[in-house]
Amino acid sequence: MSKLKLNITMSIDGFVAGPDQSLENPLGIGGEELHAWLIPLRAFRESHGQEGGEVNASTPFAEDILGDAGATIMGRNMFGGGPGPWDESWKGWWGDNPPYHNPVFVLTHHEREPLEMEGGTTFYFVTDGIESALGQAREAAGDRDISIAGGAQAIQQYLAAGLIDELEISISPLLLGGGERLLDNLGDAEIGLEQAGVVEGVGVTHIRYGVVKD
Amino acid sequence: MSKLKLNITMSIDGFVAGPDQSLENPLGIGGEELHAWLIPLRAFRESHGQEGGEVNASTPFAEDILGDAGATIMGRNMFGGGPGPWDESWKGWWGDNPPYHNPVFVLTHHEREPLEMEGGTTFYFVTDGIESALGQAREAAGDRDISIAGGAQAIQQYLAAGLIDELEISISPLLLGGGERLLDNLGDAEIGLEQAGVVEGVGVTHIRYGVVKD
Repeated sequence: MSKLKLNITMSIDGFVAGPDQSLENPLGIGGEELHAWLIPLRAFRESHGQEGGEVNASTPFAEDILGDAGATIMGRNMFGGGPGPWDESWKGWWGDNPPYHNPVFVLTHHEREPLEMEGGTTFYFVTDGIESALGQAREAAGDRDISIAGGAQAIQQYLAAGLIDELEISISPLLLGGGERLLDNLGDAEIGLEQAGVVEGVGVTHIRYGVVKD
Repeated sequence: MSKLKLNITMSIDGFVAGPDQSLENPLGIGGEELHAWLIPLRAFRESHGQEGGEVNASTPFAEDILGDAGATIMGRNMFGGGPGPWDESWKGWWGDNPPYHNPVFVLTHHEREPLEMEGGTTFYFVTDGIESALGQAREAAGDRDISIAGGAQAIQQYLAAGLIDELEISISPLLLGGGERLLDNLGDAEIGLEQAGVVEGVGVTHIRYGVVKD
């Protein structure tokens, strides 16, 4: 069965976005710097339709984030457009050709027709919960794995429910001091992790964890 | 001039002690597991007067924590004995021969005579603030570096004041879910970090950061 994987960048003080997120600053103050390791890479540039770029020790992690999944799951806040019923002119943060290139299942309380973008990305809006979204993503992914893209709240729900199989956390040398904390609000869930690998990147540390299943 | 270094183990969700710290559970629930990487090492066993033990990629970090400093700084909570005026029968958590083997400066609001232990550890109780403690530690350390041992509150004060030069953070694959958070309460301090090295240990990731000085 395909795995549900988290690939995300976190500051060393635990945030995946800085304080005061806004339309102009979707990652909050200082949050853009989280991905300073990712932006120069060829893998990132290619997935955004650009040429050139670097290949280094971080490349496999960038590829895991960007290209390897057969389907993606994300929360409503990550897709954006504000809370409440949809303004259908909002088509995500990423322009006409989003960097997912696979079916993306967006968790929401508000129904919306699927939204087909260029480059293989179609957004499906799922209103009946995280297990339903995972089931639909699994069906869409076939033999490939499923990526949970964010935000923190969606990740926390899947993690607390024991549904995530692997975590790849890239740690940036940043103290954001506030914002959206990744590994929080897990309630009484007892989640066992096994360190599965560590890679030193340029200005970033990548750690792979497996979730121990009973 | 000697450097002030932090060497500490943190869970991947950011805690240096678990919830519900007590006399029986000084590191809180689950907190003992933070140091699962450290306990089997020869460097740890030697500093606690025991023989045998392992030598592996984590050994230099264990030695940095345990043996290399010319002086140590710690907060009152880490020294223990409860808040308020001293019960002088309390001599720390570590028995007659504490693992520091150098002068240890304890931040407190309550005066107390220096406490000389076996093995080269003497506890000095400093009531006039973090800069005074650092000055005294610097004088005691001579050419050697100074280690800030904890707890989180003392570390945060030194970090926010721009007085820490290097951080060695060992990240354990644990989700403690609560307790004493390390990198928190830094206020508006803008602290720039540079990743200086990463080592994959057995069930632990060691990251070295330098603090960028303006």
